[in-house]
Amino acid sequence: MAEKPRIALKKDIKDKKEWVNIVLDRFLPRKDEYPKEIHKAMRHTLFAGGKRLRPYLMIRTFLLFSKEVERISYLAAATELLHTYSLIQDDLPEIDNDDIRRGRQACHIVYGNNVALLASDALLVSAFEVLSHAKLEDALKIKLIKEFSADMGIGGLLAGQMEDIDCEGMAKPDKKKLTYIHNNKTAKLIKLSIRFACYAAGAPEKEVQKMEKIGAKLGMAFQIVDDILDVEGSAGMMGKTLGKDAIQGKMTFPAVYGLEKSREMAEKYVQESIKLLSTYGRKADLLIQLSDFILTRKF
Amino acid sequence: MAEKPRIALKKDIKDKKEWVNIVLDRFLPRKDEYPKEIHKAMRHTLFAGGKRLRPYLMIRTFLLFSKEVERISYLAAATELLHTYSLIQDDLPEIDNDDIRRGRQACHIVYGNNVALLASDALLVSAFEVLSHAKLEDALKIKLIKEFSADMGIGGLLAGQMEDIDCEGMAKPDKKKLTYIHNNKTAKLIKLSIRFACYAAGAPEKEVQKMEKIGAKLGMAFQIVDDILDVEGSAGMMGKTLGKDAIQGKMTFPAVYGLEKSREMAEKYVQESIKLLSTYGRKADLLIQLSDFILTRKF
Repeated sequence: MAEKPRIALKKDIKDKKEWVNIVLDRFLPRKDEYPKEIHKAMRHTLFAGGKRLRPYLMIRTFLLFSKEVERISYLAAATELLHTYSLIQDDLPEIDNDDIRRGRQACHIVYGNNVALLASDALLVSAFEVLSHAKLEDALKIKLIKEFSADMGIGGLLAGQMEDIDCEGMAKPDKKKLTYIHNNKTAKLIKLSIRFACYAAGAPEKEVQKMEKIGAKLGMAFQIVDDILDVEGSAGMMGKTLGKDAIQGKMTFPAVYGLEKSREMAEKYVQESIKLLSTYGRKADLLIQLSDFILTRKF
Repeated sequence: MAEKPRIALKKDIKDKKEWVNIVLDRFLPRKDEYPKEIHKAMRHTLFAGGKRLRPYLMIRTFLLFSKEVERISYLAAATELLHTYSLIQDDLPEIDNDDIRRGRQACHIVYGNNVALLASDALLVSAFEVLSHAKLEDALKIKLIKEFSADMGIGGLLAGQMEDIDCEGMAKPDKKKLTYIHNNKTAKLIKLSIRFACYAAGAPEKEVQKMEKIGAKLGMAFQIVDDILDVEGSAGMMGKTLGKDAIQGKMTFPAVYGLEKSREMAEKYVQESIKLLSTYGRKADLLIQLSDFILTRKF
């Protein structure tokens, strides 16, 4: 990718990140509110500086179809709250037992396992709370909450987590299980972010379907690259411990398909996304650049 | 209490419990659905046979003001899902580290800490899901979800949990902290159950306020008796390990006020509830009997 678009993307991501951070900051209790410890723990991982990929995808998708930005703010916050809850729990000793996250010590290392658990729960509950307060019609909010709970609960994210744990140490590569895990653990929230943006913007059903297809492809590409970076990335840039997938015997793309083939798959997904995005013309430029970033990122 | 009303109450609790169990059973995925382990874990504690106190209070309150019972079913299920999530997490090693719950081995003992954690999350998410599917107007459902997330999140249940942990081993009895913990950890969900029942039944604002006052009193009475039973109850009847509050140095009513004074307080709360309930005449009979049960229960 040329240097100029890369700078434009970087600046736009920074802008939108600040916007989402302001919404999150206003919505959460102050960190000096009583009882303090849990508020500090919630903010520790939330404001450690993630990429805010899901909110960014959401906002940029929304802007393809609408300019009423107050309709998307709370939804963007909800996806980040949910994502951060899942990161804190992932790092707990009973799940992946990791010490570093977003370049900081993991929440449970700083605040203890008990406080980290409560803080993660609080972020999960807050995700629903912020959805219920969104500046949208009640009927639409109910639709969002139904889909959010279906995709983030036992029919989605948590089923993926369960299968991820179940498959640990499984000697035989299993393509079906791999797809199941990553579709549920990662792709569903990315798809949902894009779909919710379409709903909030009032995009026509045909566009919702097209954008969701893009979301599915980007979601898988994102996860494949994540798996690849766990093998050959830089821990400093990724802000987390690397090489753990292999040690824990995780069902990953490199483990099942090898690095070369995994790279090809990610490339194919991203190329297909870009092709679909191109049908929106210039206004999809930043989403196209983001797709490229998802493939070439080092963090 | 005379023998006859006691039998009527017992039968009514059993009836309503079966009703709620049917709703819960239909709403949750089958236990042989994929991935199995988490479904089995969710059902393990949910169907271990709790008292279903919150759903019962909810249904009986609802019936004071309305007969359209389909309006309350899902709300009753939501309170029990939420309550069970909190029990599973309470028992985890990082929180209270308990092995027995509802007369069975705790969820994490049977399924492991990781699966128990995912199952508890799934129950929490399901509570929101079932609320979003309630047979009620969208505007009312949004109101319920706002209040549910406020009271069960960082502004309620989780703040109470945090303070409960913080106060462990604190040598000095602190009445203010004790009230804070129990109001947030226990009374808020009981109050909410009663309030939601009033909303769903379309009870006039004045009645909502009166019933909520009753809920607050019954919630505190329930918790005081729970604390007392931890000191002098029967583990077999309670279905959980007893005597742990003292060992863990928990801030409880007996620890702060002594057993005698705690008993008097619980009695006072229950008498005040009964007085308020009596203004509804015969149709509040079962709620009056329940108040008495809350005081005299052995489990």
